Amino acid sequence: MKAEIIAVGSELLTPDQCDTNSLAITARLNAAGFQVHFKSIVGDDRGDLAGLVKGALSRSSLIVISGGLGPTEDDVTREAVAKALGRPLVTNAEILRELRARFARRNQPMPHNNERQAEVIEGAEALPNAVGTAPGMWIEHRGARIVLLPGPPRELLPMIESSVMPRLVPLGGARRLATRSLRIIGLPESEVDAGVAPLYQQFPQVQTTLLAAGGYVGIRMQQWLKAGEDAGAVEELAARIRESLGSAVFTTSEESLEEVLGRLLRKSGNTLALAESCTGGMVGVRMTSIPGSSDYFLGGIICYSNEVKKRLCGVPEELLRRCGAVSAEVAEALARGVREALQSSIGISVTGIAGPGGGSDHKPVGLVYAALANADGSIHTRRIIPGDREMIRERSTYMALSLLRNHLLGKEPAA
Amino acid sequence: MKAEIIAVGSELLTPDQCDTNSLAITARLNAAGFQVHFKSIVGDDRGDLAGLVKGALSRSSLIVISGGLGPTEDDVTREAVAKALGRPLVTNAEILRELRARFARRNQPMPHNNERQAEVIEGAEALPNAVGTAPGMWIEHRGARIVLLPGPPRELLPMIESSVMPRLVPLGGARRLATRSLRIIGLPESEVDAGVAPLYQQFPQVQTTLLAAGGYVGIRMQQWLKAGEDAGAVEELAARIRESLGSAVFTTSEESLEEVLGRLLRKSGNTLALAESCTGGMVGVRMTSIPGSSDYFLGGIICYSNEVKKRLCGVPEELLRRCGAVSAEVAEALARGVREALQSSIGISVTGIAGPGGGSDHKPVGLVYAALANADGSIHTRRIIPGDREMIRERSTYMALSLLRNHLLGKEPAA
Repeated sequence: MKAEIIAVGSELLTPDQCDTNSLAITARLNAAGFQVHFKSIVGDDRGDLAGLVKGALSRSSLIVISGGLGPTEDDVTREAVAKALGRPLVTNAEILRELRARFARRNQPMPHNNERQAEVIEGAEALPNAVGTAPGMWIEHRGARIVLLPGPPRELLPMIESSVMPRLVPLGGARRLATRSLRIIGLPESEVDAGVAPLYQQFPQVQTTLLAAGGYVGIRMQQWLKAGEDAGAVEELAARIRESLGSAVFTTSEESLEEVLGRLLRKSGNTLALAESCTGGMVGVRMTSIPGSSDYFLGGIICYSNEVKKRLCGVPEELLRRCGAVSAEVAEALARGVREALQSSIGISVTGIAGPGGGSDHKPVGLVYAALANADGSIHTRRIIPGDREMIRERSTYMALSLLRNHLLGKEPAA
Repeated sequence: MKAEIIAVGSELLTPDQCDTNSLAITARLNAAGFQVHFKSIVGDDRGDLAGLVKGALSRSSLIVISGGLGPTEDDVTREAVAKALGRPLVTNAEILRELRARFARRNQPMPHNNERQAEVIEGAEALPNAVGTAPGMWIEHRGARIVLLPGPPRELLPMIESSVMPRLVPLGGARRLATRSLRIIGLPESEVDAGVAPLYQQFPQVQTTLLAAGGYVGIRMQQWLKAGEDAGAVEELAARIRESLGSAVFTTSEESLEEVLGRLLRKSGNTLALAESCTGGMVGVRMTSIPGSSDYFLGGIICYSNEVKKRLCGVPEELLRRCGAVSAEVAEALARGVREALQSSIGISVTGIAGPGGGSDHKPVGLVYAALANADGSIHTRRIIPGDREMIRERSTYMALSLLRNHLLGKEPAA
């Protein structure tokens, strides 16, 4: 049940563009019991692609190829795969009729080029494409399966569900992938790894991966199970890691931090307002990424200038002059002020120096304060965050969200 | 001068993680005159990787392999490449000494595992790693070059500059890559393609790629030039596309839209304030991503609730009741109100239905208004944006930025 994925397209060999189709394809192949052991990316070149397909046939029982099924000369997948398999291309009369009907419905003449899209590798089943003009193909060849799919995600993704999965699932057998994920906030990746490595090293049969994504660290555990084998090792490892990291684990179900916060805010009947300086709106973007967030999120003030900090968030001019905009005092005043201005039960603020300019010996680039205010008073946290402007802003956002989470969990009572 | 890139790591075969190292590697290889014609991703498996390297040697003169140089059993790159080349691994006494010294400086005993990182393929040059424990390798083998680099970007990227580029540039010869990029705002990808396809089809020697990225469409043109050949075709095509698209092209130098806007705001002496509803802060995040943006960006109000629209942005309750929060009238009132509240010269607002809930026949999900106010009055634009919540929010942001750009270019005078 070894699978490999080939992405076709010269644009995927430039410095600008990643192949992301293969991520979605991998998720579905795994669900059907297939393990992806190779991925390749190749340009719009008949010879290169044909060579790659021949190599893949020697090592994989399932080959999924995305892209290169369009109508132009640059779309070489049909011809290259036909060549690799030593089969001819034949025009499928039914597909040709459908293509012509499709253009006729739009009152457009069908360009001659599009006739190429009716060519099918001999012996292949055509896979219908409800969204675009390029049909896919399902080919069986000497015990292997080869699947051809168009490159645009909005065509490829529905075709996987409608045409590929129903054919794959019966082939996948009893093997399945057991997975567990944990996400951790407030600890750097190196510290998480040092803490959990002694645990996952005791479970060599489980593949454990750490991934630092912006402001949180994800741990993914997975194991391929044979028929009759249970997921006990993955479950036990996940439970032990969770126990060792305690409340730093914010989810065991791939929820985002803002989903977790939404649940906690709704459950506690709190409403939230934000005062964002260096993050420029990032905390607001996170909080409002959840549908229904208007139940607990009232809004915020992007207080980029000192004038806005004073006028809209009520920070006294004297405080700004004495302590500076990036200070514990101003952070707490912002949190209190925005809570007042928006009449929320909780106010959160972030102020910091995102750089690259604006730092000093006393207040270096990366110095960030987050603060929280409620009816009882206010508290703050302080960090010096390494990295570039983007990383400092991203991590400042998680710092604010982390402060909110700790408060809602009862770990950081305000005042 | 055919190059290929292999990324090693089982985590890169999960649905969570793309290989992004290869993008940066491609940019540098191109600069040295090497064309990348294959990329592969393989797990931590000696046999799989050795097979891949053998295949690569048959078709490429340069093979760059990233990852799998760590100290653990899972780090198989040294052994797999040694096996593919039929060469032994030998312990390099100098590297071993340096590794021991590195641990000693931190007062830590060196784990036995780390000794593996001193193993070098016979005949390889070790490439120093200033940041981590894994040295790289440069190997010459029957006319081909194989480069081994560690996976973490903060180790890999400096090693490319310090050790790989100085060795590659003399090999690259006189070939070079001519590239030009344009970025377009306000037109969907299909419309851009329909407009420019007749132009780029006249330049088959230029590889032209369209890429829709969030809210803008990028066009990249590139051509590999032989010694003595000039970039005339790329330049001419870029000029003709630019002429045909007119002011929809916001940059020819890979600037972001917010950089362009920053320049226009600074030049015109304007200051900006934002009122964001459905975008929840996205416009603010964009505007503040540019260092020095405090020169022209004062701040904004995330007016997610109607209360905030009334209290902080001065929208009359009667207007909200009569027209609804998502309406041309309220959009303009928000732009005027935030301009007033923050005392900026320009106010910009966005209000819309990001979904998935909240739509009606009259006001469907995706309905978005953006408005702009200045001393002369206010204007708005309206769109129905297809896609999911994230796409609607992203494109609403570009809609607001596009309105601002048109105004600053004198194309949309307010009132």
